[in-house]
Amino acid sequence: MNTLKNDLLLRTLRGEKTERTPVWMMRQAGRYLPDYRVLREKYSFFERCQNPELATEITIQPVEQVGVDAAIIFSDILVVPQAMGMEVQLIESKGPLLPDPIQSMADLDRLVLPDVEERLGYVFDALRLTKRRLAGRVPLIGFAGAPWTLLCYMVQGKGSKTFDEAKAFCYTQPKAAHRLLQMITDTTIAYLRGQVAAGADVVQIFDSWGGLLGPDDFEQLSLQYIRQIVTALKDEVLTIVFAKGAWHSLENMAATGANGLGIDWCIRPQMARELAGPRVALQGNFDPAKLLSPIPVIEKEVRAMLDAFAGGPHIANLGHGILPNVPVENAIAFVETVKNYQYEPAR
Amino acid sequence: MNTLKNDLLLRTLRGEKTERTPVWMMRQAGRYLPDYRVLREKYSFFERCQNPELATEITIQPVEQVGVDAAIIFSDILVVPQAMGMEVQLIESKGPLLPDPIQSMADLDRLVLPDVEERLGYVFDALRLTKRRLAGRVPLIGFAGAPWTLLCYMVQGKGSKTFDEAKAFCYTQPKAAHRLLQMITDTTIAYLRGQVAAGADVVQIFDSWGGLLGPDDFEQLSLQYIRQIVTALKDEVLTIVFAKGAWHSLENMAATGANGLGIDWCIRPQMARELAGPRVALQGNFDPAKLLSPIPVIEKEVRAMLDAFAGGPHIANLGHGILPNVPVENAIAFVETVKNYQYEPAR
Repeated sequence: MNTLKNDLLLRTLRGEKTERTPVWMMRQAGRYLPDYRVLREKYSFFERCQNPELATEITIQPVEQVGVDAAIIFSDILVVPQAMGMEVQLIESKGPLLPDPIQSMADLDRLVLPDVEERLGYVFDALRLTKRRLAGRVPLIGFAGAPWTLLCYMVQGKGSKTFDEAKAFCYTQPKAAHRLLQMITDTTIAYLRGQVAAGADVVQIFDSWGGLLGPDDFEQLSLQYIRQIVTALKDEVLTIVFAKGAWHSLENMAATGANGLGIDWCIRPQMARELAGPRVALQGNFDPAKLLSPIPVIEKEVRAMLDAFAGGPHIANLGHGILPNVPVENAIAFVETVKNYQYEPAR
Repeated sequence: MNTLKNDLLLRTLRGEKTERTPVWMMRQAGRYLPDYRVLREKYSFFERCQNPELATEITIQPVEQVGVDAAIIFSDILVVPQAMGMEVQLIESKGPLLPDPIQSMADLDRLVLPDVEERLGYVFDALRLTKRRLAGRVPLIGFAGAPWTLLCYMVQGKGSKTFDEAKAFCYTQPKAAHRLLQMITDTTIAYLRGQVAAGADVVQIFDSWGGLLGPDDFEQLSLQYIRQIVTALKDEVLTIVFAKGAWHSLENMAATGANGLGIDWCIRPQMARELAGPRVALQGNFDPAKLLSPIPVIEKEVRAMLDAFAGGPHIANLGHGILPNVPVENAIAFVETVKNYQYEPAR
């Protein structure tokens, strides 16, 4: 059960040379896949995510239909605030809503440090079932939101371009903010340990809103907590940190000991490598909107991206989640171009 | 009439040493000011912007009430698409809506290259009246949206986090995209020339969505058009380019010959200076959300920002527009801290 037929992702994260670049896509188990949309019509988000059969089916769809080199468990970062006692509504096409957000130190008493087996056991069940069904075809990635990104939702109560209320909470009530960040961190460490025990080969920490913070705030409000998580887990599992937009802190992120760092399309791969140093695997960084281009353009641009990453460990991926309106054949073109790249005479 | 009592901004943009750093705030004529909110209750956005008396009153409010070193004419970047023939609705608290967006080359035939005197003369009238009423107290800034940012709205039809439809339009219909960008560019050059003739001492080009593009796309879809505008205007007026998030292209933006470059709070001033070179004035980069902090924190952080910019020409500003929920006294604290900085013994 433990032998993987395709362990390109794991070897790349360990810094080993591989015969080709591994490829997967953030949100690869998602709305651009017609088979996913069928399940989305029939079941609510939490049904899909809490029913291990459904979560497993959704997780494996892109492995079988798009040919990616890794599966990532179907779930959402907001299951953690939910497990901590907050009401979380995930309404299709409307984004998340937390109707009773955190506004003060007193509100933190409403939160619990959950028993993750009890509150999030359904994720572990889904990981175990997925692991069995994958039968060693590709590695399985687990994940969690970074504490800063979760605080954004827990305080703002919904999505936002700028998360001003979340930032104002941190600037005006720093003690409450740091207590909350530490509670999320402790929960996340236990949650990711459970994911590893259930079979995750890699865990990724998503800091979707890290890029809203300046470099000093990023260290204070985000990276110091990510560092705790990576430190707690790095001897047990391979780790990837993706703090979208936080290019300014790549050097500090690499110093956490994470095996991989995600980058978005707004930084040149060469610059990212310079900042991050030679050791860490870089993951990214195709502009998700470019998958809406004609396929020959996609192929050309993917090859240009691979050229730019050559010379250091690289995991091909998008710079953010795949968009719902991307044709499946374009996603397949992305994956296939990476897989065939080694044979390109132009290299 | 042409002698300015306070020309700190102009001298800084010319690269001259000044006795202190000039300061203004993007969106300084806006909702955080109670007197603005009164006018907003009584008049629609286009009434405020098309009536020179109202526009002038709003433009001068922050000069008198907050003490900034420059006025920026009250208007909106979407007056240009409107002048080109598109319907633009600006509904309070809902963001812009262009109900009939551009989707194809054929749609471009609906657009005109407007006679700017005829279609945008109200902006020139407002500039002339403001200039008179300012009576040389501070310089007057005119502005326009960058062609890429205007394309985003003209194609997407409304605000968006990612402007995927606008990007997809460029990737799938590059000829139409470039024709549209050139039409906007030509209109913008004529529009800004009119602003200069009407009294603008400086013009700023706002590329609010430049940061959504990777470095190569930024050059192709945005910077090459900004460069045309700067080239056309730089012998007539001082120019500032603010492409939010496009830190990766600071060197190329400096090479346009612009006198100033805006930067946001996600890049350290030292890094921005390294990328932009020694000549150009850097404008920014206080995190707008930080103005929600307690005043002593604001004062400390503003001084830290000024320390970090020391050694090169700098215009103190925010890294994006001021937020509507900032208390006026916090905005004043920002401005006053910059003005008093020279006297700080810690320097």
